[in-house]
Amino acid sequence: MRRYEQNPIIRPADVPPSAPGMEVIGAFNAAATRFGDEILLLLRVAERPVPSGPDTVCFPVADEVDGQPVLRRVELRRDDPDVDASDPRAVVYKGRTYLSSISHLRLARSKDGFHFTIDPQPTLLPSGPYERYGIEDPRITKIGDTYWIAYTSVSDFGITASLASTQDFRSFTRHGVILHPENKDVALFPGKTKHGYALLHRPYTRSLGSTPDIWLAYSPDMVHFGNHRHVAGVRPGSWESIRIGAGTPPVLTEKGWLELYHGADDKAYCLGLLLLDTDEPHIVRGRSREPVMRPEAPYEKAGFYGNVVFTCGWVVEEDGRVLIYYGVSDEATAVAETTIDELLAQVEPV
Amino acid sequence: MRRYEQNPIIRPADVPPSAPGMEVIGAFNAAATRFGDEILLLLRVAERPVPSGPDTVCFPVADEVDGQPVLRRVELRRDDPDVDASDPRAVVYKGRTYLSSISHLRLARSKDGFHFTIDPQPTLLPSGPYERYGIEDPRITKIGDTYWIAYTSVSDFGITASLASTQDFRSFTRHGVILHPENKDVALFPGKTKHGYALLHRPYTRSLGSTPDIWLAYSPDMVHFGNHRHVAGVRPGSWESIRIGAGTPPVLTEKGWLELYHGADDKAYCLGLLLLDTDEPHIVRGRSREPVMRPEAPYEKAGFYGNVVFTCGWVVEEDGRVLIYYGVSDEATAVAETTIDELLAQVEPV
Repeated sequence: MRRYEQNPIIRPADVPPSAPGMEVIGAFNAAATRFGDEILLLLRVAERPVPSGPDTVCFPVADEVDGQPVLRRVELRRDDPDVDASDPRAVVYKGRTYLSSISHLRLARSKDGFHFTIDPQPTLLPSGPYERYGIEDPRITKIGDTYWIAYTSVSDFGITASLASTQDFRSFTRHGVILHPENKDVALFPGKTKHGYALLHRPYTRSLGSTPDIWLAYSPDMVHFGNHRHVAGVRPGSWESIRIGAGTPPVLTEKGWLELYHGADDKAYCLGLLLLDTDEPHIVRGRSREPVMRPEAPYEKAGFYGNVVFTCGWVVEEDGRVLIYYGVSDEATAVAETTIDELLAQVEPV
Repeated sequence: MRRYEQNPIIRPADVPPSAPGMEVIGAFNAAATRFGDEILLLLRVAERPVPSGPDTVCFPVADEVDGQPVLRRVELRRDDPDVDASDPRAVVYKGRTYLSSISHLRLARSKDGFHFTIDPQPTLLPSGPYERYGIEDPRITKIGDTYWIAYTSVSDFGITASLASTQDFRSFTRHGVILHPENKDVALFPGKTKHGYALLHRPYTRSLGSTPDIWLAYSPDMVHFGNHRHVAGVRPGSWESIRIGAGTPPVLTEKGWLELYHGADDKAYCLGLLLLDTDEPHIVRGRSREPVMRPEAPYEKAGFYGNVVFTCGWVVEEDGRVLIYYGVSDEATAVAETTIDELLAQVEPV
């Protein structure tokens, strides 16, 4: 896996904020797809409102103006008795907690896969009650002419998985919450299996010794899911001892569905590989023992939240060449190059 | 709401254990349905294996023999260094925790709704990896000729909602896990809505200030679910301040879908009413302010876990008469009688 020498390819400073008074602090965890003669990234763009002076604090909220979603900036005096800003990650106002930053999704376009032009405006803004604290970590899956965008919705109802679709990346249809809280890291398969369409997901579970593992669900129509199966778990004592979750949408190879996922211990987020059965992808056929990528480059080891490599998308060309797009340090976007054969060689049978 | 004077109508001692060496400690939280000229209850039957002497401890496991589910009894010496039995609710063996009791589902049959004959054998046993610690709290919903049984599956993968169906209560089809962990208190609507079939569910969520509330999901086919909506939340400072969850399958009245649910604070589980929009039942039209039933009778206030009234089923006759079956003190089954009109009178518009 060869890191591009000019990484990171997109930094927060490259992204214009969605509105005056907002500052972009993250442009990372991007979905990726080929669209015509371009490679598109759908970036997670995290913003925070900038206070106008030292006596005030700000927080963002997702709102609506004339029926259209907007991000709104709320500014309050620090000495307001209803305000508690002692934790920099959040503002407590009238007993309610507001996160200090919020994410939307933004397209970036490239002819070569390395040099991107970022859209000046948000592509998808948080909308409605389940997205009040933002939308995050999209994954794009193409089926026929439709691009399905699974993403994480965050609100005071919890963390859910939502779905949107488009054919042209201009108009989007929202399909609502597809998996109830707590769930994230949702990646749809780009084709049917023996049991219908499928997606990987990551319930956040802790009861009875359960751990945050990768599950799979099947669907007749891409928007309703059932037949949930546990796919792969954390491995105690390893680099993936605390949590794992789907990364890229799986790609079908001659050996099965290949999935690049993330795993974390208490030090770092790394990437690993799963090989899933072609017909019944809830069955694991292979797994990489060691990470196929660890945080090593300076931009992977330091940043907003260091020691994180995290992928939401890859572009697999017909000749087997793979461009892996990945978020670094919860801040910027990087790319690495490899091939399906090189990846399959790192998978051990299970 | 008139409690039957001979409550509880079913006690653990009335239920034969599933195998020698097992003791029934709970017969409660029953689904209810009319089936021909009978009323059927599908009881949650909790059992624990009885140790053969003071030097041993036991735990149950769900297993398979010749492809058929069975409950197995594991007995170990207390002085085995691999055994930790210091917590009476569980046995830790070789670092793994096993619950000290396990539930299956068992039919009871009645002509009058008050006097029941209990089947000598289990009707549905825990089966497969998601039911290793038992199956609990069923709800039966009839659509056409099919009776759908939604229930809670418990395993070290967490707590999930599963589905089975039958037409004759002799042979059952299992439809697997319909909602990923953590989820329970699932009740299917007995008919279609504007958005298809529907079910109430209760994700166990805690992130970002979220609480264990009642949600709804829609389905084209009763087995795949999407379009999740938050329906009703806990109410701080009230009798339902900590958690709420669906109880009975909703029944369609002239004013909307009527739902009898449970709510808990730190002292008791009580029952309340929701009135949901006929076409779009994720919209709440009414709610009871005070509980419609609190633990008051001795059998409701004391038992395996006292101060609990908890319903999974009612039988609503065509003349509006309602028999509410409810679990008392996580131990036995009771019944109360009322009418749809009496229940609707306790609902306040919201």
